[in-house]
Order: sequence, then C-alpha cells, then structure tokens
Amino acid sequence: MDAVATHQDDPGPILIDHPPPTPSEDEAVVQTNYVGIDGTDYEVIAGGHGAFPPESEYLILGHEAIGTVETAPSDASIEPGDTVVPTVRRPPPSGPNRFFEDGEPDMAPPEDCVERGISGAHGFMTEFFTSPPSDLIPIPGETAHHGVLLEPLSVIEKALDHASTARSAFNWTPTTGLVLGNGSLGLLALATLATHGYEQLYCVGRRDQPDPTIDIIESLGATYIDSRQTPVDAIADAYMAPDLIVEATGYAKHAYQAIPTLAPNGVIALLGLPEDWSFEINGGSLHRELVMYNKAIIGSVNGNHRHFTRGIDTLDALSASFLDALITGVYPISEFQKAFPELQPAESNASQGDETPIKTALKFNAL
Amino acid sequence: MDAVATHQDDPGPILIDHPPPTPSEDEAVVQTNYVGIDGTDYEVIAGGHGAFPPESEYLILGHEAIGTVETAPSDASIEPGDTVVPTVRRPPPSGPNRFFEDGEPDMAPPEDCVERGISGAHGFMTEFFTSPPSDLIPIPGETAHHGVLLEPLSVIEKALDHASTARSAFNWTPTTGLVLGNGSLGLLALATLATHGYEQLYCVGRRDQPDPTIDIIESLGATYIDSRQTPVDAIADAYMAPDLIVEATGYAKHAYQAIPTLAPNGVIALLGLPEDWSFEINGGSLHRELVMYNKAIIGSVNGNHRHFTRGIDTLDALSASFLDALITGVYPISEFQKAFPELQPAESNASQGDETPIKTALKFNAL
Repeated sequence: MDAVATHQDDPGPILIDHPPPTPSEDEAVVQTNYVGIDGTDYEVIAGGHGAFPPESEYLILGHEAIGTVETAPSDASIEPGDTVVPTVRRPPPSGPNRFFEDGEPDMAPPEDCVERGISGAHGFMTEFFTSPPSDLIPIPGETAHHGVLLEPLSVIEKALDHASTARSAFNWTPTTGLVLGNGSLGLLALATLATHGYEQLYCVGRRDQPDPTIDIIESLGATYIDSRQTPVDAIADAYMAPDLIVEATGYAKHAYQAIPTLAPNGVIALLGLPEDWSFEINGGSLHRELVMYNKAIIGSVNGNHRHFTRGIDTLDALSASFLDALITGVYPISEFQKAFPELQPAESNASQGDETPIKTALKFNAL
Repeated sequence: MDAVATHQDDPGPILIDHPPPTPSEDEAVVQTNYVGIDGTDYEVIAGGHGAFPPESEYLILGHEAIGTVETAPSDASIEPGDTVVPTVRRPPPSGPNRFFEDGEPDMAPPEDCVERGISGAHGFMTEFFTSPPSDLIPIPGETAHHGVLLEPLSVIEKALDHASTARSAFNWTPTTGLVLGNGSLGLLALATLATHGYEQLYCVGRRDQPDPTIDIIESLGATYIDSRQTPVDAIADAYMAPDLIVEATGYAKHAYQAIPTLAPNGVIALLGLPEDWSFEINGGSLHRELVMYNKAIIGSVNGNHRHFTRGIDTLDALSASFLDALITGVYPISEFQKAFPELQPAESNASQGDETPIKTALKFNAL
C-alpha cells in the first residue's frame, strides 16, 4: 500500500510501497483519512529527530492523523466505522514503563518512548495503520472535519494544563496572553486561549502585512506584534505584561526575553525545540526577576489522553471559519510533495500567489 | 527604647533610640525576644534593597523575629503572653490591595507591599513593636525556642509549595533533592526536604572540610558536594539527577547550570537574589532540555500565613540538636555588632576560632 516516508538513502519525503498492516489480536486497524504536516515533520526529514524503526530502512512520516476504524478487537470501546485520532507515543522496545502504566506517556523522557512518525516507530502517512484501541481517541462527526488539528491541539492543551497547574498554589486569574509565533501551532494556541476566557491576546511574528496569519490573529480579536519592531523583552512596556506567554517559535532567545516581559506571578510555557545556540544573557537580572516577581517557566512536550479529550472541546468551541483558514492546503497522495511546501523550490511557492501555507494535510481517503 | 538600624548617614548597623510604639486600637504590642539575621540584612545595610520608611532617616532592621504579646485588641485571636512570630509584608502606603485581601501578600510585586526591616517599614530589632494581630503567628512553647528560624522556614515552605504544585498535573513522586547553598537558608531547606520524605539528599557548597556546615549536612544523612570540584551542571553524571533543586546561593549561574542536572519532569525552585551579571549560556540547549524533559523553574519569594503554619510543623519535626547547631551565636543588644560577623574585621572573625557563623541572632528579652 502507499506510504510517504523518509528513507535512509533519500530523506525525501518519498512515496513507497509498504506492506499492509498485520494486526495482533489486541490491535485495531484504522483506514487513514487525513494526515497533517507540521514543523516536526520537516525536522524528521532533516534528520534532526530520532531513529528509524528497528530493522527498517525508512520511517513512515505523519503524527497528526485522523482515520476510520476498519476492524477492532471485540472488547474494545471503539468499533468499526468510528472516526478516531491516534495518539503519538508508544512504549519503547523494552516494553511499557510507569509512564504508560500511569496513562502519562507525555511525561516519558525521549529514551522511554517511541513516537509514531517521529522517532522509532512508523507514522500514519499510509493507507492503513494498526494501533491498540486505547491509543485511538474517538472524535465526533462534526469535529472530525478538522481532526488533523487535534494532535497539535493536544500539545497546547497539555502546556496550558501544566502552566495553569503551576500557578494553582495561589489565586491566579490570568486575563492577558501572549503567543510567540504565528505558525499553525501558535495560531492554534492563540485560538485556544481565546476560548479559555483571556480578554487581551497578542501574537508575535515576523511577517509583513498583509499576511493571512495576521488576518487570522485579528479575526480572533488579538493584536499582532512584529518582533522586528518590538523585541519580545520590550512588549511589556510597549503593550502590556502578559500573565501567560506561550512560546511556539523554537527561537531560543525568546524564552529568555520573555522573562522580563511576563507579568508578576505569570508563567511561560515553552513548546519549541531550538537548535544549540550560545549567546549572552544578563543571567543575574533574569534570575532576580523570576524570584522577586514569583515567575515560573515550564517546558512541555506531547500530550496525553486527557489533553486530546480537552482538545476536542476546544475544536468544538472554535469557529469553522477559523479552522478552515488554518488548513491552507489538502493534497491527494498523488501530489504529496505539495503538502511539504517548505521543501519546494521558491518558484513553485511563488506560484501559490499570496496564499502563505499555514497548515497542509495529505488526503488518503475522504471522510 | 533601643533599636538597631541602618541610617541614611551611617549604614551601620547602629544602636539608636527609637520612640516606643503607639498602637492603634486595632494593633497588638509585642515585646521582642529574639531577632535572627540573614543575608537580606546585609543587603539592606549595603543599600541593595528598598526605601526607608516615609519621613524616616533610618530603617530599623530585622525581619526574623520572635516576641511575646504585651497587649492585644480584645477581639484578637491572640492574647497577652502568647509567643508570636510576625510576618514580614505589610500593605504599601497606598493601602491594602488584592494580595493582602486574598491573604497572599507573598504574591505582591515589590511595588505593592512594604517589608518590615527590609523596605519601607521598620523591622523588629527593637524592644517593642506593633502589628495587626492577624500578622502575628502564634508559635507553641517547645517550638518557640528556635522561633527565629520560622520566617526563613516560611520562605522555604512557600518555595516547596509552589514547586510541588507546579508538578501536580501528573504523577510526581520525587525522591532525590539537591540544595544549592550551605548557608542557613540552604541548610534549613535541606532539613525540610529530609522531613518531606526525600530519600537521597545532596547539598552544594564551596567550603573546605572540616566545616561545621558539612557536619550538619552529613548529620541530615545528605551528601556534601563541593562545586569547585563538581560544577552544578556535572552533578547529574557524577551523583544523580535530582527531582527537585532548591537554589539558595544567589549565584546567578547556578540557575542555568541546574537545568541539565535536573531529572526529567523535575523542578528548580529559585530563592536567591543575584546582582546583575551577564554571561554566555547555550540558550538553545537549555530551552530544548526544558521542553523535551518537561522541566520547570519557579521563582519564589516570601511566604504567607499558610507557609508560616507549615514551618511550625517542620520546626516540630526537626531535631533540637540540628536547630541548635544552626544558631551559632546569640548576642545581647550591648554586643549587637557581634551578631553581624560578616561586617567585622577579619581579625575579630579569626578570634572565633573554627566556629564558622551560620545563623546569628540578637537577644532583646529572653523567652
């Protein structure tokens, strides 16, 4: 069957022929509908993430999927025909550990898990895949249309869960939020905050107006801040000091510039995975700022079942027009290269006119 | 009456004559028994902290006090003869704000509070002081003997409260703790962790053996680590990766070196207040480490009523021999200079033999 993979001899992505899955008696078989693409996929293709699956010369890509259950074990809580979104993390070759037993695979260190489509296990960019039924999140019909957004939403829900929990030892009523980054993850984070009752929202990017992401930011009632004009550490003075800052750029300096801009008693949630980069900071001043103003920083990766479930509520709460605007291109398997616009020659990007790609997806079988 | 103060013309500390307090009808009068001295007092004397009280040319020092209620309003929950420890923060000249109304003065930014003996309000190094009864924590007789330790303990209890709350979104069962700093605050933090069920404890210092603080560390069953031999970022490899790191040195680089040494899903609690200091870090690597391993950093200052109350439980749980070893000198008001050993000429320190001062206190009236 068709699959899109990165190969040890050709990072691709390339179209390959992969054997149909042979489920164990405990597994469900899922027919893939759509698979979203994000920055992590490009990092995997560039070789910046983990290993190929054991004894495989390639890794099937894709960790943001929605599919339809084909077969399921008779004792499973899902059944054929259900629309589901798979979680990403699975036990490592050494077998399940306490993180999986606790239902918290998102808390496993990288060495204690594999990630489907990212590191050590095949992903979902294939016509069919198998999975334990407990790793498949049923998603209701009306929400399923935007189901490729559920996995990235689970990452945001987890970060917001940890951020607000980190402030639950005292009376914390955040009203202002700042998202660093106007990629698909940043825009989803911004929209999620809008559904969480934040009154004032800001989003930082580096794009010139007019730009579709800026239109989306403004459609959410948020203010766009160009970091080329207002550096992150100047935002508190130029606009306001946010109670919550969500970093979704992977730009390493932002984490440190965010500390003085954060409001007293606020929290910074870091989501990006920057490369090594050495630079100078006023480490004494930043440390003192954290202490004197009771500030917190949390790093967050992945999301567990609870965060996928919360993500469904958020998808429900978001307008279809916002979600439609986020998904800028859906391509059939015959045109899979177009779903990776960042790998296309500049000329081919230009041919898309002013439609900056935000989130692309591959279509395997329409819902 | 006698008071020990820092004066705008002579940082001192100097002995001054201060008018006896004139309580309002809502205030209690407390006769001071003992006042402890810590690093903050030296910073106040050096001019590194906040303002003198309005219209005063001096600031009475002291924020770690224990005293005996002399008079109290008839509707107060304390009464004459009670032994009490005063909290430090009071509303600013503009009046109470939401932090005080919520019972969370520890969450007030510096501009929204004054701190007795530190910034904007007279401290407790005087024969009598006044206070709203609600800012006086009754302390039972057997614990009162070490009552000057309650205020620093409240700071630690608050940091541990915020640190463990920050990890309460998942199943976190910390067993290893690392304290950076073997001053009185660091040793109190280490002892507090010992009462909180940590199985493996480590404490970082920069002192040669033999040293009384190292004896105290080992008496708590903890391991001393000399950071001159094992830098903080090498501790994970040389010893273990701690679930919790408490920074109590004010040495700015420690906060950043602690990130790679912290165990996955762990938390760093910062307590120190370093000066400005610019240096290079691998900001990309530290950021990635926080995200990939779900690590958290919380800054924490001061403590509220709840943290003082928890500190009483901790004082109760700690051995009298440990607490006695921590208080290395108690001096009468006639010898108040000896209570500030770091301000004495080296010769006079040498005359103390090998008794490194850890925590000193001034005696106003024996309990």
